[in-house]
Amino acid sequence: MLANDKGALSGVRILDLTQFEAGPSCTEALAWLGAEVVKLENPKGGDQGRLAASEDGVTDAHYFLIFNANKKSVTCDLKSGPGLALVKQLITKADVMIENFAPGVIERLGLGYDEVKAINPGIIYAQVKGFAEGGPYEKFLSFDMIGQAAGGIMSITGEPDGRPLKPGTTLGDTGTGMLMAISILGALYQKKETGVGQRLTVAMQDAMLQYARLAFSDTMKTGKPSARAGEGVVTGGNAPMGLFPCKPGGSNDYVYIYVNRANNRQWHRLLEVIGQPELIGDQRFETARDRYANKDEINAMLIPWTRARTKAEAMKIIGGAGVPCSAVYDTVELQDNPDFETRGIFQWVDHPTRGKVKMPAWPVQMSGNDVKVKPAPLLGQHNEDVLRDWLGMADDDIAALKTEGTV
Amino acid sequence: MLANDKGALSGVRILDLTQFEAGPSCTEALAWLGAEVVKLENPKGGDQGRLAASEDGVTDAHYFLIFNANKKSVTCDLKSGPGLALVKQLITKADVMIENFAPGVIERLGLGYDEVKAINPGIIYAQVKGFAEGGPYEKFLSFDMIGQAAGGIMSITGEPDGRPLKPGTTLGDTGTGMLMAISILGALYQKKETGVGQRLTVAMQDAMLQYARLAFSDTMKTGKPSARAGEGVVTGGNAPMGLFPCKPGGSNDYVYIYVNRANNRQWHRLLEVIGQPELIGDQRFETARDRYANKDEINAMLIPWTRARTKAEAMKIIGGAGVPCSAVYDTVELQDNPDFETRGIFQWVDHPTRGKVKMPAWPVQMSGNDVKVKPAPLLGQHNEDVLRDWLGMADDDIAALKTEGTV
Repeated sequence: MLANDKGALSGVRILDLTQFEAGPSCTEALAWLGAEVVKLENPKGGDQGRLAASEDGVTDAHYFLIFNANKKSVTCDLKSGPGLALVKQLITKADVMIENFAPGVIERLGLGYDEVKAINPGIIYAQVKGFAEGGPYEKFLSFDMIGQAAGGIMSITGEPDGRPLKPGTTLGDTGTGMLMAISILGALYQKKETGVGQRLTVAMQDAMLQYARLAFSDTMKTGKPSARAGEGVVTGGNAPMGLFPCKPGGSNDYVYIYVNRANNRQWHRLLEVIGQPELIGDQRFETARDRYANKDEINAMLIPWTRARTKAEAMKIIGGAGVPCSAVYDTVELQDNPDFETRGIFQWVDHPTRGKVKMPAWPVQMSGNDVKVKPAPLLGQHNEDVLRDWLGMADDDIAALKTEGTV
Repeated sequence: MLANDKGALSGVRILDLTQFEAGPSCTEALAWLGAEVVKLENPKGGDQGRLAASEDGVTDAHYFLIFNANKKSVTCDLKSGPGLALVKQLITKADVMIENFAPGVIERLGLGYDEVKAINPGIIYAQVKGFAEGGPYEKFLSFDMIGQAAGGIMSITGEPDGRPLKPGTTLGDTGTGMLMAISILGALYQKKETGVGQRLTVAMQDAMLQYARLAFSDTMKTGKPSARAGEGVVTGGNAPMGLFPCKPGGSNDYVYIYVNRANNRQWHRLLEVIGQPELIGDQRFETARDRYANKDEINAMLIPWTRARTKAEAMKIIGGAGVPCSAVYDTVELQDNPDFETRGIFQWVDHPTRGKVKMPAWPVQMSGNDVKVKPAPLLGQHNEDVLRDWLGMADDDIAALKTEGTV
């Protein structure tokens, strides 16, 4: 099969009522797989993510651009009668509907699962919340950091003697969105077999457990709370393992070096390339246990070597020798790295108001598909397209909806 | 549709040559969706993850149990002629084949994409590597922490004045696995339409970008490397936002409080419940900008209140009032919380050698499916089942394979 630009989910229609990141990251992944994602937004400002992080309060934020690529935007005032009628028409044409409003909001709008299922029994109805329905916190509000606190991620992040920290990754949002994308895809596959829809729900708190499972394996083993390990691993016990400082000593001038415990091959390779081959066979370091016991000696030997090199040099030498190693790259180094552009991991788009911007794309390469990144839509940019295409509406009717403020 | 225990992917066959976590977390998610995942392992010890973290070197580690639930295990010596012939037979029956060996290994085994496609043109062939094929580090080895260093995650995690840290989450592994699961599901959907397979590849380094996109939006805006923000958010600028210490002052006795910038409702609710309603309308705090400018005063007011309460009490009061708030829960508190058990987020299994263990399950609820967690397989536990079912082998032939050491 030749790579096509329509994608694996070509023909799948998703009605997307989500905002900020947890929901939008999910539907964007599906759009990158080729689904037609129609973002339904209120005509007065749309998704709060459009302007919340905008420096001028007018131009769609980079934040919005990043999480809403390859989508269409249709405006609809859900609180008006005609708006509600319009969304119900769209629902009849959708394969998937997804929302991440605060608890209770979608039901109060008259668009709870029972109502939607009555209109379209085959629909896959997906909901992303902070805390689970039926749990003690089901009405609580949430954002990324709340999910990360509630789901154990913060308790295992930070220095061993320090307070909990939030990882820089927005795992509570995008991490949750990815798990919902998996479940929606499973339900779409199932629907192709059975024709039937279903309701999918995920809570950020619950989703975080999925990403903290190495720590849970530690707790299963020890019965104790998994502890913070700084630069290390919660299950600990390896040497060399960790960050080693590099030239010229900036805040991200480090390489991570990790030598496998399973055998001595990587250790011996490391000794060779750092110019210490005479230590091969030295009994202080010849088992994983001994290396860990003598880790201070190992670190004392490695640090002068790494300090004398840049992180790129150190990575090239150590990683090139078959020892797991990477520089700590920052976001500018990654964004500016031409390799990512060559491979399509970053792509340029021309956004109507932001101009040319370089966007992170879906990182999994699919030989059968090549969906290019398209800029996030302006508010209501696809009103005509979608109302015409999905509902067969005439231009006059669309104009009337606009005049009355429904779209 | 009534919930069924077979799952959305019932009938999908996955030949799983992965080990440790990045690959196994992916295939486990697919197993939890109902796919038949056959883990192909070398007869001498199997997946290195079985024993690498085992306390006695004999009993399958909790680590292995957590990432290999609901799978079958078949042994096969891939380095022997009969073993290679056997796996090729299995390949003819599989919908998906997935591997995460070190770069070049699968090709040296004679099971590269071209060979496999020649045997089964419809197969979805998935590969998880540390660094991308065609990139400068394509031959480099990787583990979770190497991916997190290489993909920007460590550069944005840690205290603002501290060194980079590794989040406790194994995002390099499970985070990558989830993205591959999404792409496999997309390809399975596409295959149902077209009958054709394809090759999927993902690099841990590239996958990390997907989870660092809030930081990339920051870099797009500022042109600078996104900085570490401790307990905060890389894009910063909010108050109150962060961890507040609680009684009795243990290492995880904190609540995270986040007051939305968009309006003053959450701020006013917070003032009410902490007994400071007289500050509603106080000009020092009436805009998001002012609150941030006067964040030290806000923190000084909040801290005594939180210190006088446990994290559970503080969460109940503040979160219950409609202000985003969560306790920092540790892994024991989460594992022991009966709510997760009631909702099936943790489930008990009876493992042949570990006995009864409580396992984290797939966190997305699907109304149409109810696949229970099943214990990870013992090495070779399903040799007979799978060889009989997939290949129609007679018992004598299976016994012969065993005698000659192929399985």
